[in-house]
Amino acid sequence: MKQLNIAILGCGTVGGGVARIISEMNGEINTRASKKIVLKKIVELKPTIASKRFGISPKLFCGGGKDITSEEATEYINEIIKSEDIGLVIETIGGKSDFVHQLCLDIIHSGKHLVTANKALLAERGKDIFDLAENKGVKIGFEAAVCGAIPIVKNIKENLSGDKILSISGIMNGTSNYILSRMQNENLEFGEALKFAQENGYAEADPTLDISGGDAAHKLILLTKLAYGIDVSMEDLAIIGIENIEKEDIDFAKEIDAKIKLIGYVKKVNGNIYATVRPMMVKNNNFLAEVNGATNAIRINNKYSGIHILVGAGAGSSETAMSVVSDIVFIARYGENIRNTALQQERQIEDPRKFIFPYIITFHTADVPGTTGFITTAIGEQDINIETVSHNRHTGEKAMFSVVTMPTTLGQIEASIAEIKKAKPEMLLSEPKIMPILN
Amino acid sequence: MKQLNIAILGCGTVGGGVARIISEMNGEINTRASKKIVLKKIVELKPTIASKRFGISPKLFCGGGKDITSEEATEYINEIIKSEDIGLVIETIGGKSDFVHQLCLDIIHSGKHLVTANKALLAERGKDIFDLAENKGVKIGFEAAVCGAIPIVKNIKENLSGDKILSISGIMNGTSNYILSRMQNENLEFGEALKFAQENGYAEADPTLDISGGDAAHKLILLTKLAYGIDVSMEDLAIIGIENIEKEDIDFAKEIDAKIKLIGYVKKVNGNIYATVRPMMVKNNNFLAEVNGATNAIRINNKYSGIHILVGAGAGSSETAMSVVSDIVFIARYGENIRNTALQQERQIEDPRKFIFPYIITFHTADVPGTTGFITTAIGEQDINIETVSHNRHTGEKAMFSVVTMPTTLGQIEASIAEIKKAKPEMLLSEPKIMPILN
Repeated sequence: MKQLNIAILGCGTVGGGVARIISEMNGEINTRASKKIVLKKIVELKPTIASKRFGISPKLFCGGGKDITSEEATEYINEIIKSEDIGLVIETIGGKSDFVHQLCLDIIHSGKHLVTANKALLAERGKDIFDLAENKGVKIGFEAAVCGAIPIVKNIKENLSGDKILSISGIMNGTSNYILSRMQNENLEFGEALKFAQENGYAEADPTLDISGGDAAHKLILLTKLAYGIDVSMEDLAIIGIENIEKEDIDFAKEIDAKIKLIGYVKKVNGNIYATVRPMMVKNNNFLAEVNGATNAIRINNKYSGIHILVGAGAGSSETAMSVVSDIVFIARYGENIRNTALQQERQIEDPRKFIFPYIITFHTADVPGTTGFITTAIGEQDINIETVSHNRHTGEKAMFSVVTMPTTLGQIEASIAEIKKAKPEMLLSEPKIMPILN
Repeated sequence: MKQLNIAILGCGTVGGGVARIISEMNGEINTRASKKIVLKKIVELKPTIASKRFGISPKLFCGGGKDITSEEATEYINEIIKSEDIGLVIETIGGKSDFVHQLCLDIIHSGKHLVTANKALLAERGKDIFDLAENKGVKIGFEAAVCGAIPIVKNIKENLSGDKILSISGIMNGTSNYILSRMQNENLEFGEALKFAQENGYAEADPTLDISGGDAAHKLILLTKLAYGIDVSMEDLAIIGIENIEKEDIDFAKEIDAKIKLIGYVKKVNGNIYATVRPMMVKNNNFLAEVNGATNAIRINNKYSGIHILVGAGAGSSETAMSVVSDIVFIARYGENIRNTALQQERQIEDPRKFIFPYIITFHTADVPGTTGFITTAIGEQDINIETVSHNRHTGEKAMFSVVTMPTTLGQIEASIAEIKKAKPEMLLSEPKIMPILN
């Protein structure tokens, strides 16, 4: 049996989980990989913590198990990159710093395969990494970078290769979904639900990347590259987070038999890519509406095989590490023959304002007779068909109601709102909220 | 670009779908396979029907597009098997006849890769086919044989290779699930729902294989081989179908916040395999409870990565054909390096009566005071803890109620029922129904 020597850079939550699985499952992994997988070295600044937490022999750490300085770590890393003995490096340092970016380029340049869980890096600065890998014939495993344990990368690349992906939609951020689920199920305001998420370890002290949609956007960027071979940027996605979702939005969702979810969405129509991350009202007959808590879920709509849904843990130490280990096995087994991603295509990104969806628009207005008629007329004048208007809620001087449209574009809705503002500047008490409805 | 020539034997629902996808997606498929995939020949008794239905050029059919006899078909098949030009054969004739069994052996013997959707053959007579493939270094693609479009085979073999599968449970037969869903949602009796299924094309005129659990069992057998490398037989599974599910069972399910589903279930505990196919009461907090209609769904519980759920179309022409085409691409790309299934293990099958589950037992008794006490006492005497006893229903001379147990074995429950029968032969008006509860 041939041997593949590997090294782990960064032994935190994910890297430590990888070391643990490799040590516990070594027999099975070797059989499945058709190679003896040998973990040779781990570089970690504070190995004592990692060693205890994951049950790793101190001898595996560069420096013999003692804490090392950043300078020492860099030296050890350079030794690993130069070593002809190591065939695959696992980057679990994380972040999109110049240091990590250059590190990944150096690993690939040395001809070693790279496995990483680093979604921020690959999504925002990945192009030259993938391009260099293509040139060097090096394989990049990044299953762990997209929705943790869900094997969505290999499902798209390998398992659904007999089909055309029409669209991908998904719950790609567990923290947001946890918060929205608690708001939904317990009638909480956003701030209360966020506090529970932080208390229960589902949100970090600074939850910005999760609740702003940034983390979901990283995953969607990688999925778009995989499915369509197109590089989209964070800016292309017109990302909206969940910070402004209120109890009243959840009420309107219930009224139309839907749940609010932070959705990453991409579809290809006539060669054009529509991609966005934002809260959507997911109708209860769509499986994604049933996915509660910190779970992730992806829904693929395929030309030939219809709807596929994959549900699983979006984060967690051993959960994410499992995806890293599966990548190691896959690369060990199939090596040279693997393709890293889809064939690169021309960029053809559409403005999200051209996205066709049914939408729900929520209005806060002065409580004056004739308001509903005026607003719905203005919407109709932009060629938008209205499906339903919710029961008005009258609260003293304010009224509040929502309009559900038939499929239309965000651009048309924005035009109708602009007309309302122009004709009756006093009518709207706040900026209307616009959310796509996902059937 | 290298070339892989293929042939299709049997151009019905699945085979025709394969020919269609290959013709429509040829460019993409070649790129993904890194090989030019060329469909050289199709053998089909009645090519005029297939040609029209799937838009296939008559020239592709052996015999030039005219109907051929069985004898001619056999000659054409033998030519294909002898041909050095063909590298992969798609068997979509179906059935577990000696003819098809021998045909598959001949294909493998000739050194050609085999892709098939034939679950009955592989599950019931597959051992020598897999063994011969192992000897000859030939690859067998059978994604389409297990739950149609759901890529469960590659998910187990390739995507979750960094984990240990603790258990697999799933809705593996669309017809049964359609019938049970309609019973559940519309308060129908089994016969009424079956009739609707037949009228709507979800059940065949003879629905036996689907409703008896046989079809689900075929899939479970293949999943058990994949996940654990163990060959189980139909007899091992102690299969129970859905023919005897009544409206009242659905009512009891609602009472315990569950839905009745036909479940294929396998788990490995301390080296022992527990596997069965039978109706279970799936609690509503389990995703499988949400899967309605003809859809299939598989739930994998993994040691490291927790719960994975895959949902998709379990049948259909282009849906199943997609899985066949993905297998062709995978074999074309990774050829020699693929492993067909898990390493063969010793058989260690446990009696399903030793399966530990919470169970629900439904009793029809004479309407006499003291019955509930007598029965629950008898159950307690077998060391079974009772969780709840449902409200009794009194219907004239009969009473009806159900007992939900804490986790126990079927063997203990059967012993308690035997005791009841012995002590009070007149108490039970019919054989109690026993169903596992799936959390």
